Amino acid sequence: MKYSFKNDYAEGAHPRVLEALIKTNLSQQNGYGLDEYSINAKNIIREKINNPQSSVDFVSGGTQANLIAISAFLRPHESVVSAETGHILTNESGAIEATGHKVHAVETANGKIQPKDIQAIIDVHQNKPHQVKQKLVYISNPTELGTIYSKAEVKSLFEYCQKNDLYFFLDGARLGHALMAEHNDLTLEDLAKYTDAFYLGGTKNGALIGEAIIINNEKLQKEFGFHLKQKGAMLAKGRLLGIQFQELMKDDLYFELANHANQQAMKIKSAFAEKGCDFLSETFTNQIFPILKNSQIEKLAENFDFYVWKKLNNDKSAVRLITSWATTNKVIEQFINEIKNLK
Amino acid sequence: MKYSFKNDYAEGAHPRVLEALIKTNLSQQNGYGLDEYSINAKNIIREKINNPQSSVDFVSGGTQANLIAISAFLRPHESVVSAETGHILTNESGAIEATGHKVHAVETANGKIQPKDIQAIIDVHQNKPHQVKQKLVYISNPTELGTIYSKAEVKSLFEYCQKNDLYFFLDGARLGHALMAEHNDLTLEDLAKYTDAFYLGGTKNGALIGEAIIINNEKLQKEFGFHLKQKGAMLAKGRLLGIQFQELMKDDLYFELANHANQQAMKIKSAFAEKGCDFLSETFTNQIFPILKNSQIEKLAENFDFYVWKKLNNDKSAVRLITSWATTNKVIEQFINEIKNLK
Amino acid sequence: MKYSFKNDYAEGAHPRVLEALIKTNLSQQNGYGLDEYSINAKNIIREKINNPQSSVDFVSGGTQANLIAISAFLRPHESVVSAETGHILTNESGAIEATGHKVHAVETANGKIQPKDIQAIIDVHQNKPHQVKQKLVYISNPTELGTIYSKAEVKSLFEYCQKNDLYFFLDGARLGHALMAEHNDLTLEDLAKYTDAFYLGGTKNGALIGEAIIINNEKLQKEFGFHLKQKGAMLAKGRLLGIQFQELMKDDLYFELANHANQQAMKIKSAFAEKGCDFLSETFTNQIFPILKNSQIEKLAENFDFYVWKKLNNDKSAVRLITSWATTNKVIEQFINEIKNLK
Amino acid sequence: MKYSFKNDYAEGAHPRVLEALIKTNLSQQNGYGLDEYSINAKNIIREKINNPQSSVDFVSGGTQANLIAISAFLRPHESVVSAETGHILTNESGAIEATGHKVHAVETANGKIQPKDIQAIIDVHQNKPHQVKQKLVYISNPTELGTIYSKAEVKSLFEYCQKNDLYFFLDGARLGHALMAEHNDLTLEDLAKYTDAFYLGGTKNGALIGEAIIINNEKLQKEFGFHLKQKGAMLAKGRLLGIQFQELMKDDLYFELANHANQQAMKIKSAFAEKGCDFLSETFTNQIFPILKNSQIEKLAENFDFYVWKKLNNDKSAVRLITSWATTNKVIEQFINEIKNLK
Repeated sequence: MKYSFKNDYAEGAHPRVLEALIKTNLSQQNGYGLDEYSINAKNIIREKINNPQSSVDFVSGGTQANLIAISAFLRPHESVVSAETGHILTNESGAIEATGHKVHAVETANGKIQPKDIQAIIDVHQNKPHQVKQKLVYISNPTELGTIYSKAEVKSLFEYCQKNDLYFFLDGARLGHALMAEHNDLTLEDLAKYTDAFYLGGTKNGALIGEAIIINNEKLQKEFGFHLKQKGAMLAKGRLLGIQFQELMKDDLYFELANHANQQAMKIKSAFAEKGCDFLSETFTNQIFPILKNSQIEKLAENFDFYVWKKLNNDKSAVRLITSWATTNKVIEQFINEIKNLK
Repeated sequence: MKYSFKNDYAEGAHPRVLEALIKTNLSQQNGYGLDEYSINAKNIIREKINNPQSSVDFVSGGTQANLIAISAFLRPHESVVSAETGHILTNESGAIEATGHKVHAVETANGKIQPKDIQAIIDVHQNKPHQVKQKLVYISNPTELGTIYSKAEVKSLFEYCQKNDLYFFLDGARLGHALMAEHNDLTLEDLAKYTDAFYLGGTKNGALIGEAIIINNEKLQKEFGFHLKQKGAMLAKGRLLGIQFQELMKDDLYFELANHANQQAMKIKSAFAEKGCDFLSETFTNQIFPILKNSQIEKLAENFDFYVWKKLNNDKSAVRLITSWATTNKVIEQFINEIKNLK
Repeated sequence: MKYSFKNDYAEGAHPRVLEALIKTNLSQQNGYGLDEYSINAKNIIREKINNPQSSVDFVSGGTQANLIAISAFLRPHESVVSAETGHILTNESGAIEATGHKVHAVETANGKIQPKDIQAIIDVHQNKPHQVKQKLVYISNPTELGTIYSKAEVKSLFEYCQKNDLYFFLDGARLGHALMAEHNDLTLEDLAKYTDAFYLGGTKNGALIGEAIIINNEKLQKEFGFHLKQKGAMLAKGRLLGIQFQELMKDDLYFELANHANQQAMKIKSAFAEKGCDFLSETFTNQIFPILKNSQIEKLAENFDFYVWKKLNNDKSAVRLITSWATTNKVIEQFINEIKNLK
Repeated sequence: MKYSFKNDYAEGAHPRVLEALIKTNLSQQNGYGLDEYSINAKNIIREKINNPQSSVDFVSGGTQANLIAISAFLRPHESVVSAETGHILTNESGAIEATGHKVHAVETANGKIQPKDIQAIIDVHQNKPHQVKQKLVYISNPTELGTIYSKAEVKSLFEYCQKNDLYFFLDGARLGHALMAEHNDLTLEDLAKYTDAFYLGGTKNGALIGEAIIINNEKLQKEFGFHLKQKGAMLAKGRLLGIQFQELMKDDLYFELANHANQQAMKIKSAFAEKGCDFLSETFTNQIFPILKNSQIEKLAENFDFYVWKKLNNDKSAVRLITSWATTNKVIEQFINEIKNLK
């Protein structure tokens, strides 16, 4: 069977996560997130982000995190601004609209929104109340194109939002990879200061499932539990999420795994670069987008699975390769060997 | 720490379920329910219900199963009929209404709906289109009161629904316990014949999480995946659900575990009966509701946790005791011993 | 053709309302409620209720008023308490649920809710966040049974709501008739003090269409226009509503018409009483519910149309008779004559 | 006071419409659209469109017509394709999204959608069920830019929709003006053949309020009344809508009025053309968009009101002028005189 670079959720969980599940298995616990592991994991996260006032809630997946947070934060006449590549805009089957809210698309060069992009949307929605009211800005870090926001960029977006009475929400399905990327200068603590809410993704970084929604704006924390329950996200065995996040966060396994994934991707990136390949966008996280000749793609596809991401012309396409906490050195060596032998 | 009889989701998963997760952990699989374990688990379920035409989808929890199935099945002007004790009516924080649908409450003696109850709701909603249109009947088996439906009852409800252009949906959060109960004559195969859809609960019967939504009515199967995705229920690592259901269903571990839970409850029930206690309702599943004197409740509560369910008068209340796959013989012996010593 | 006592919206509008439409017809005005008539009508209403801080908005009908107000006031996890006879509960085809909110039914003797009824609902919803949160109390005055609330009753409901962090909303589709009823001691000014919001019905009291939504709670006024627009209630020719309410309110034509309707009903009521009839409920507004023998019903139905409201036994039923601003003395005389001749 | 060319809903109703209301005022009628006028008006419309199978329903306004039709036609996971200038996209405060459905924006040169534009949206939504499913195409005729669709264009869109399992819905808020435009070759009968549903606008063409929703696709007609009621659109005095449409349609007053509005606009257009002005888009309906120098705009604004529509550079802007059934020859002469005197 071919090795797959298609995504970072192809395997189960990091062994330490499984061990933690086994070790705690027969301890009787309260349901619905009131177990001791969840409580402990929340405290660890609050310490890591250095904000004891933030609320932390665990949910199963990213679409769930997005739809619950956004619908809980907004009143019926309020809308969301997202990059046109944003996950909520293109890959969640209308989940946000299904809760009643419009999502505006912003064209971007590299998946990253700037204050001027938001302003442009606001400018053409001045005919109130005939036009919907913008109230929340949604970004992903890393973006769907693998690029990352700098601390200055996040801060400037937050300040813009504050000035314009907008909430600022960050989708962190792969946040670990962003924070461990080369050139990154953003920290978890910054996110607790410069967002109203964000989430920390577990599914794509070593957990079986699980995302931690962190709400920094105290106004938005109010009665959030009702929204979790009403949207079907409050697991009877909330322990499943608490145990995993406790294990991942308590001594930074989460960041080790993200770092590992990034390193493996960077090794592949170097190999392609040495081969003289261009890239669709320059990324420093666990996704890379080398541009290859059709014949090269065919050759690599003999032993490895990956997505052809974008056809550039009749001869060339960009492919997407994703590494994960589970990508071994041995696989990387085999793949780099194949890259070296490409014609 | 006291042993808890508060619910059947206090522990993690049955050891065999954990072992299956460990054994499969590093196998690379497709995401979003397209992994080989999910596909296999679906086939096993289709065999067990003896209906190759049924669709099977796995979701994380019961509220999620209910809200997705019901909102996918109904058009905006259609409503649901439920027992007033129904989980969707009282314990899901308005989840069904949040998808736009009214839920009508039917008063029942024992948590079980009869065709005449549904007819009574329909009779007072004849002023169309000023009154909402009833379209789906929701029951739970076992009910929230621990009672179970007989095959004849389910069949007669289904026939009534067929005749009246209603969908018939069964919430099976504890379906295993119902099917393994003394006096039960209903089978999985019957449910594939006599419901439009039902779900098979894993969370309360040995899984970490997971419910299997089974849709028998082919019209209702159409494009169901969109609803799963839109409501945030489609896990990237769908394997987590597939592996568990494969393990639980392949050689009937699921039914063994439910049987074990029922047996443990019946032992306690006998002990109370021998002591001369009455019960709030007679149940044969893993929930029992003995009526005790306050002093007896206080005594038992010294070493065991459970809910005081309903105050009957100043001296007596009914309590609820729930057993599970994880309730050991040793615990049962200790508890029965305490029952015997009650004054 | 038979004369109809079936409802109070069988005719068009009071002639003075039509004249006002004609007189203003060619004046060019701003759209969407910014015309001078709407602005003037709002000011008149604010004077009549003696609350310059209240907001006033005109919509087309009662279901629209209810669904917009309630959905604008509530967050997604909040629910409504209504009498089980409430219009939103039984006669609006699930309109409130379609905006995402549960409506709880309260059983009442005479259509009127008391604080203890609300408390009973709250008492059985204490398992938060698993159970929905009650946030708004909805009453109609007069009720669907024609009964009216006293000032003390409204005040005590409002105080209860204030104490329990609930909004208090009054459906006034026939509010004029309530305020002009014999024994009524409630005023428009009281409603501005003792409700968070209410509406003043035009459709059933001399207008072609139109209800005035009056919001006293300033927090609830915020951005209400967006909700009107989003739900399709903001008429391009908002003047149609403004002109009518201006005409009805400016010199109390509204109350004259309601009084006329009530008087006509009371004449019929007296005639039935003199004949020895009982009534289903004692009402002082424009709806009466005499209990008649089948033969009497048949006789009266020869020349008049009305609803048989409730069958009491094989011999007798209660009928419903509604009068309006358009019910002439001549018709009343003819009808009373028939009553006198009943056997 | 200045004469306003800002919109075509500045006045009340055409005098014949008012006369019809007066003449019928005291006739007692059934409520909720079951009056004889509504029934008659529906029959007249069915005759004019030459389709006895079409259903006709009257509602108050355009946003209401759009949101009810679209939400009634779609299942929760289905989306709408609209021109980026479409009224539902930019001017209805998120009304469609509030019913749960995404609206995709298509960039167009002149406000008109072509099959290839729809196909482009479908092409980038092939990752099912992660991406929302396109199901309805929404166009306006005339478009928001005043342009109109030819019969061939409508037919080709309908055929494309048929082939791709899409519904085709036409917003006809100003349909009369489109059908009476110079160069138009489309008829009401064509619309009954080449759309699944459309609406015929009254508000902007001589009625006080009112739009007629016409559903040709019999599958979509089913239980439509529930949606009207649930969304608050079913007027107790439905007669108000029926009487107006009866009067407007019975001997083609509707088309006379639209023709009059168009003629008045064309006179102004000629005057600007003779003056050498360019136009933002070439229109033949009652909206024109001449491009003027700032000084010319200032001069005309002394005695007339209109919108400056689009700034083109520091010296020039396009203005929007709208005429209506109520625009008199005298006003047109005065305005043309001012145009002639522009420098």
